Amino acid sequence: MDSTDEAEVLVPALAAVMRRRRSVRNYAAEPIPDTVLDACFDMAILAPTSHNLECWQMIDVRDTHRLAELRRICLDQPAAVAAPHLIVAVARPDLWRRGRTMMLARIEREKSDPTLSEATRKFLPLFEEKYRILIPLIFEDGPLHILAPLKRFLVWCRACFKPVMRGPFGRHEQALWAVKTAALACENLMLALAAHGFDSCPMEGFDEPKLKRLLGLPRAAEIVMVIAAGRRGDDGVIPQIRFGRAHYIARA
Amino acid sequence: MDSTDEAEVLVPALAAVMRRRRSVRNYAAEPIPDTVLDACFDMAILAPTSHNLECWQMIDVRDTHRLAELRRICLDQPAAVAAPHLIVAVARPDLWRRGRTMMLARIEREKSDPTLSEATRKFLPLFEEKYRILIPLIFEDGPLHILAPLKRFLVWCRACFKPVMRGPFGRHEQALWAVKTAALACENLMLALAAHGFDSCPMEGFDEPKLKRLLGLPRAAEIVMVIAAGRRGDDGVIPQIRFGRAHYIARA
Repeated sequence: MDSTDEAEVLVPALAAVMRRRRSVRNYAAEPIPDTVLDACFDMAILAPTSHNLECWQMIDVRDTHRLAELRRICLDQPAAVAAPHLIVAVARPDLWRRGRTMMLARIEREKSDPTLSEATRKFLPLFEEKYRILIPLIFEDGPLHILAPLKRFLVWCRACFKPVMRGPFGRHEQALWAVKTAALACENLMLALAAHGFDSCPMEGFDEPKLKRLLGLPRAAEIVMVIAAGRRGDDGVIPQIRFGRAHYIARA
Repeated sequence: MDSTDEAEVLVPALAAVMRRRRSVRNYAAEPIPDTVLDACFDMAILAPTSHNLECWQMIDVRDTHRLAELRRICLDQPAAVAAPHLIVAVARPDLWRRGRTMMLARIEREKSDPTLSEATRKFLPLFEEKYRILIPLIFEDGPLHILAPLKRFLVWCRACFKPVMRGPFGRHEQALWAVKTAALACENLMLALAAHGFDSCPMEGFDEPKLKRLLGLPRAAEIVMVIAAGRRGDDGVIPQIRFGRAHYIARA
C-alpha cells in the first residue's frame, strides 16, 4: 500500500478511536481481560519518551484492600468508585540513572550487531557520548539538587552568546520534564483502551501525598493521573465540550 | 457494528499508527497541505483537557524569518533544520480564567437547550457550581501567586482528617498541571500526522526564554515541546529502543 491508500484506512480509524475516547464516569462491573490490558500497555510504551530515559511507570492496582483505599484517596469520585480498574500513572525523574544504564548497555550490544544499517552505525558514537556525558551533566544535580542553581547560572552565562538548552535542572524542572513523557504514554493507553471497546477517565482529583504513601513511591515521584478503566456503564458520558480550532491553534 | 467487530478494525489500525509514529530526524522539503494540518489539529483538540479549562495552545510558525530564528533557537538540530513545519506546543495555565468564562457561557446556553438529555440536565447545576466556586478557589492565587502557600496550608490542615485534592496551587504546580493537558494534545497531533502518512519529532532541545520572547508569550507560559512535522526523508529514522512491559508496568 502506498501512503495515500494507507491514510484512507488509518485516518478514519484513528478519528473513530479519538472520538470514542471519552472521559467516562460510570462503568459496568465487567473487568478488562488481562490480554487486552497488556496489549494496551504495550501501546502506551510506543509513545515518545524524552531522551529515551523511560522515566515513567504505570501501576495497575489489583489488591482489593489497596484498591478500596485508592478509591477513597480519589475522593470517592464516581469514576473511581465504579471502574473495575484503576491505573496510577507516575512520572519518575529519579529513574534517569536506570534509563541511562539501560541505554548504554543497549548501545554496547547494538555495536556488535552485524545486521545494523550504515546510517545507524554512524549515529552510535554520538549516541553513546550523549548518554556518557550529556545526560549526567543535565540530570546529575547532587544531593538535594544542590547543583541545580549553579548549573542554571552557567547555562544562563552561555545563553548570553547563543541559544542553549536550559535543563531540566532541579526538582521542579525535572518533575515537569518527566510528567510530559508520562502524559504522552497515558494518551496512548486511553486511546488503546478505546480501540478495544473499553473506556477510561483521566482523574486528577486525588490526595497525592496519601497516594504516594499507599504505593510506597519515593519523594521525587510525581503522580500524573489516575486512569479509571473498564466498560462504559449507563449515563457514563456527559457531552464533550470543545471550542473550535481558533481557541487552540495560532499561526505566527 | 458491535464493539467486538469494531475493535477488530480499530485495534490493528491504531497499532499501525502508533508504530508508524517515529521521531523522525530528516524530512523531505514537501510541505503538509493545510487541510491535512487542520485535520490533525482538530484531532489534537479531542484529547482530554483538565477541568475543561483548555489551558494549552499550539503555534504553527509560518513566517519565514521567525521560522529561521526558531530553528536557531532549537539549536539547529537536524529535525528542526530539515522539517518544513515547526509547531510550538505551549501550556498556558494563565488561560484558566478564559476557560472558566467559556465554560460558564456554554453551561448557560446548554441550560436552555430543549434537546438536552435528563442525565445531563441533572448534572448541569453541579457543573456550574464547579466553575463558579471550585475553579477560582483552586486557580486564583492572587498577584505573584501570593495566596498559594496559604491555600497549601489550609488544604494540609483538612488533609489531616480526610483525603483532599491538593491543588494545583502556585506557579510550579499550575505549570505542571497545564503541561499534562498540553502533552496529551501533542500525542494526538503526532498520531494524527502519522495516520495521514506524515511524520513528526517532539523536540525539547531549545532555548526556552528565547523562544518565549520570539513568540511574545507571557511569563506564565511553559513551552511543552516543539514538534517538527513533514514527510519522512532519507535516513530520518533510527531504530526505536524500548525495554519490555516489565520496565514500565507494575501490579500492586
